[in-house]
Amino acid sequence: MSDHPAAPVPALEPPYYVAVFTSVRTAEQAGYPETAARMEELVKQVPGYLGMDHAETPGGLSITVGYFRDADALAQWRSNAEHRSARQRGRAEWYESYTLHVAKVERSSGFSRA
Amino acid sequence: MSDHPAAPVPALEPPYYVAVFTSVRTAEQAGYPETAARMEELVKQVPGYLGMDHAETPGGLSITVGYFRDADALAQWRSNAEHRSARQRGRAEWYESYTLHVAKVERSSGFSRA
Repeated sequence: MSDHPAAPVPALEPPYYVAVFTSVRTAEQAGYPETAARMEELVKQVPGYLGMDHAETPGGLSITVGYFRDADALAQWRSNAEHRSARQRGRAEWYESYTLHVAKVERSSGFSRA
Repeated sequence: MSDHPAAPVPALEPPYYVAVFTSVRTAEQAGYPETAARMEELVKQVPGYLGMDHAETPGGLSITVGYFRDADALAQWRSNAEHRSARQRGRAEWYESYTLHVAKVERSSGFSRA
């Protein structure tokens, strides 16, 4: 996810959905970077995908937030076959623990110095 | 926020609220760590506060996700006088840009190897 510019996705017009994925990874990370890059490529093809923010504390918590126009867009991403198999491999190898929160945005705001 | 154990807040019973705060900070960080620690102490006193996850890419994006039982808990935190003044100082000094998404969680799930 290194091609992300260091700026958060700006405030969008509600309603839209966020998928908040918080995780801690294991020591076993073979294949992870390639899969993460592939998932990022794939999710961009989902109609209604609006963007993604990612932050990771070295040796600690990772948080990825995906933004989607509606529940259908999220359902489509969730049922993608390659994404399913990546999630399965994630549980088998890459994640120590994770939590997913799917939520409907009611309000958003932003600030930029520029 | 260094006293957080490296494990995400586990899945909670919906409905609840998430406040997703994504930011990039400026080079001017005097007073920031103390204020962040104080805010963390204060938010714990809000009835209905359920926890917080935080991740930060060095030199890049920070994401803080706060979990709250309902909109009232969030409104109470939002109107806290010390929190207000910290937000004001944040815009004046600490933040290059930020986005806040407030959303009602409809679904959550988790995984833990342990």
